[in-house]
Amino acid sequence: MQAKSPRESLTISTDMVLPGETNPLNNLFGGELLARMDRAASISARRHCNQIVVTASVNHVAFTKAVPLGSVITVEAKVSRAFKTSMEVFIDVWVEDTASGEKMKANEGIYTFVAVDATGKPTVVPKIYPETVSEKERFAAALRRKQLSLLLAGKIKPHDASELKALFD
Amino acid sequence: MQAKSPRESLTISTDMVLPGETNPLNNLFGGELLARMDRAASISARRHCNQIVVTASVNHVAFTKAVPLGSVITVEAKVSRAFKTSMEVFIDVWVEDTASGEKMKANEGIYTFVAVDATGKPTVVPKIYPETVSEKERFAAALRRKQLSLLLAGKIKPHDASELKALFD
Amino acid sequence: MQAKSPRESLTISTDMVLPGETNPLNNLFGGELLARMDRAASISARRHCNQIVVTASVNHVAFTKAVPLGSVITVEAKVSRAFKTSMEVFIDVWVEDTASGEKMKANEGIYTFVAVDATGKPTVVPKIYPETVSEKERFAAALRRKQLSLLLAGKIKPHDASELKALFD
Amino acid sequence: MQAKSPRESLTISTDMVLPGETNPLNNLFGGELLARMDRAASISARRHCNQIVVTASVNHVAFTKAVPLGSVITVEAKVSRAFKTSMEVFIDVWVEDTASGEKMKANEGIYTFVAVDATGKPTVVPKIYPETVSEKERFAAALRRKQLSLLLAGKIKPHDASELKALFD
Amino acid sequence: MQAKSPRESLTISTDMVLPGETNPLNNLFGGELLARMDRAASISARRHCNQIVVTASVNHVAFTKAVPLGSVITVEAKVSRAFKTSMEVFIDVWVEDTASGEKMKANEGIYTFVAVDATGKPTVVPKIYPETVSEKERFAAALRRKQLSLLLAGKIKPHDASELKALFD
Amino acid sequence: MQAKSPRESLTISTDMVLPGETNPLNNLFGGELLARMDRAASISARRHCNQIVVTASVNHVAFTKAVPLGSVITVEAKVSRAFKTSMEVFIDVWVEDTASGEKMKANEGIYTFVAVDATGKPTVVPKIYPETVSEKERFAAALRRKQLSLLLAGKIKPHDASELKALFD
Repeated sequence: MQAKSPRESLTISTDMVLPGETNPLNNLFGGELLARMDRAASISARRHCNQIVVTASVNHVAFTKAVPLGSVITVEAKVSRAFKTSMEVFIDVWVEDTASGEKMKANEGIYTFVAVDATGKPTVVPKIYPETVSEKERFAAALRRKQLSLLLAGKIKPHDASELKALFD
Repeated sequence: MQAKSPRESLTISTDMVLPGETNPLNNLFGGELLARMDRAASISARRHCNQIVVTASVNHVAFTKAVPLGSVITVEAKVSRAFKTSMEVFIDVWVEDTASGEKMKANEGIYTFVAVDATGKPTVVPKIYPETVSEKERFAAALRRKQLSLLLAGKIKPHDASELKALFD
Repeated sequence: MQAKSPRESLTISTDMVLPGETNPLNNLFGGELLARMDRAASISARRHCNQIVVTASVNHVAFTKAVPLGSVITVEAKVSRAFKTSMEVFIDVWVEDTASGEKMKANEGIYTFVAVDATGKPTVVPKIYPETVSEKERFAAALRRKQLSLLLAGKIKPHDASELKALFD
Repeated sequence: MQAKSPRESLTISTDMVLPGETNPLNNLFGGELLARMDRAASISARRHCNQIVVTASVNHVAFTKAVPLGSVITVEAKVSRAFKTSMEVFIDVWVEDTASGEKMKANEGIYTFVAVDATGKPTVVPKIYPETVSEKERFAAALRRKQLSLLLAGKIKPHDASELKALFD
Repeated sequence: MQAKSPRESLTISTDMVLPGETNPLNNLFGGELLARMDRAASISARRHCNQIVVTASVNHVAFTKAVPLGSVITVEAKVSRAFKTSMEVFIDVWVEDTASGEKMKANEGIYTFVAVDATGKPTVVPKIYPETVSEKERFAAALRRKQLSLLLAGKIKPHDASELKALFD
Repeated sequence: MQAKSPRESLTISTDMVLPGETNPLNNLFGGELLARMDRAASISARRHCNQIVVTASVNHVAFTKAVPLGSVITVEAKVSRAFKTSMEVFIDVWVEDTASGEKMKANEGIYTFVAVDATGKPTVVPKIYPETVSEKERFAAALRRKQLSLLLAGKIKPHDASELKALFD
């Protein structure tokens, strides 16, 4: 199974914010954006492993900028690290100013997917080799995030989270 | 502003999984469930503060059990901790076996909402006093999660995350 | 087959009124509410009999209060009476004032469902024993409503609608 | 305000049954059909009075035939009787056999709408004069149905429902 | 296989323009209308041949009048010409003034469908005999449009488009 | 107003085909794809002119390959020619094989948009300069298509369609 670059899983989805997707402040609903991010991220994970994938967890999503009705948003997803049967996907969301065409970061998120066969059983995925500076940083941070995630889920003890523990030494 | 119990923000939303919401394995899409959780959780946060609320972050969601097409799922959301202008909401999702009526935990998630006025400016929310054992545990853990979240976002340094740091001592 | 209490079929579905569901007065569309009531009521009927159920009829729905865009509404459904293979379900809809948190009755409806097997053939459902005052009243009235329904459908003659006829004596 | 014929409010809506609208038996959901009937019926009422209309009640809907996925269904709505500010609309739903093109009755329903001005206040609607045999029968029955509806809602006493009472004499 | 009249495939679909289907000018989205036209036109083609049909091409759609939120629109589709396994369908869209009830043409379009069996293989369709003046004109023009379509797709050379070529002689 | 390259309006939208969007053969509905193409194309036109745009016409769409449920499709839209107030947009749709990751052309389409101000009045758009071979070919063909479109709409006479007429000489 040949290792791949994050670039090969890059998934871009540009679309408008329609009236049926807005909250009482006329901005895009958080939940709607979470669903769009999940769709783009799962395509990205599937492009990395060429198998069926299912969402295993949402590790973190921060909503830093409201996205008004009528905006054009671009969701960009790329696998940041591949583990044995799971893949961490990093998602950047951009909102575009209509008049100037300028793009600004609206939010970002990190999801984890598991590759499965037709019966739902986890299967091995290709390794990944980060190329750009940003890809390398995200690749390195992914291990700390995985430990945080296991820690939050109570699946490992604090002192086994070596990468994380090192932060506090 | 009077403090409230988590019980007062309990929000229950029971609904079916329809064909338009399923993935290639005929299970509920992760993204669709994230959107439903966001809707229930935002109602819960709004019930706590009686103000408009917007999603600030998703702290963690773990998908532990696939939810097949036709299932009845129940999303239960309750504010777990109130900070100055933000509220952490804990969401439990149950799936129901049609034949036996038995309920099983499908997944759980933690979202953070901010109360805002009509212009989008953050406003102060009531304090919360946990009552049950589970409410007290979630209340205590919420501070650690908040520090983790700030840490992940690069807004605080590891050594300022005192609650979290204590775990590793 | 063990008789059940109406309480065991109670189904609660709390959700928001989104922009895509409103009429030209910016209130929730009647048809959209009818669909939500059907979904909650069918889950309630299914919880009573643990079988597949299909909507047999809508006996009555009265829209007494407009539900504005952005409202939080709660649909509560409970089986009011079980017949041989059919169940009458009573649905109460509440709308919540954002600022005060106060709940007001928006409308109510009565639907009938039939339990069926996988081939669509009607199957016997458990009996029901009403417990509260309200449950007992609704149980008693259900027979009159069934006769009204049969009468409207031309399936019985006025003089065979004994419960109904008694009202006019 | 000139009286109108039911023919002038005839509203026809033919559409397919899509996968997102079906129940576990792969038939059209009752609730989805109720929503489509409401949309066609409200257009019919609006065509009678040329004003904004809101759903006041569903008087009766009987589901007599399951509608499988992929079916072509035709909803036909026509005002059956006009009262002071309200209109009863009769809706017939037909399902079409793909291979033969033959149409069969799937269900029928009766809804009541109220004409309102831009502030939601009820306004007077034109009278109606039935022309065909079927229109005349439905016009006559509408008064009995109105009394039933008021009776069910507890707004009139059984002995004041003169049209209805006469049935039992 | 008996020839049919265009009248036998007439398909009417009247519906409202809802808030979730509008663009930033509060008018019906072009894409939403294209989808509605496709649905009505495919039912029309299916009524002509009593077989499964799939969209083969959109030959032309002109949007001549904006359709505001809340409008009642009527999509009317009718097969204009049948070829060996394909059918051209002409679609007229009308928008209705609420206050006066007057109907105006909003746009029109021409789609082509192919009849297929359950494996997706094209199958022969009945011939068509136009009856009205408008049906005869559209029938005649359909051949020129087919040649234009083949020409645009690069499947025939300009000089083989005899009907079209004749226009320029 | 500075001229732009087609590259600056390139819009990519990758998404899955969900169960609610399929026809009886379990392939993506033509109408659904038309709507997605319209959304991507309108964003492309808006990126070219930085103004509100409305769909003026669909010039041609050919569906050459069925798109099965669960597919990943990529819609790519790019302005092919700018006229005074209108823009022709060329849309390529690709479908991706899950197992191999290979992309195949599913269909292509040509739409025309008009730039408008907030009152809906057409406004002037920037000129365009094609760069690649494909962009130059599409730019040249756009004028012939515009004449075809005007010809079909009866707005010009065959002999005034000079570009088109030349094809037949």
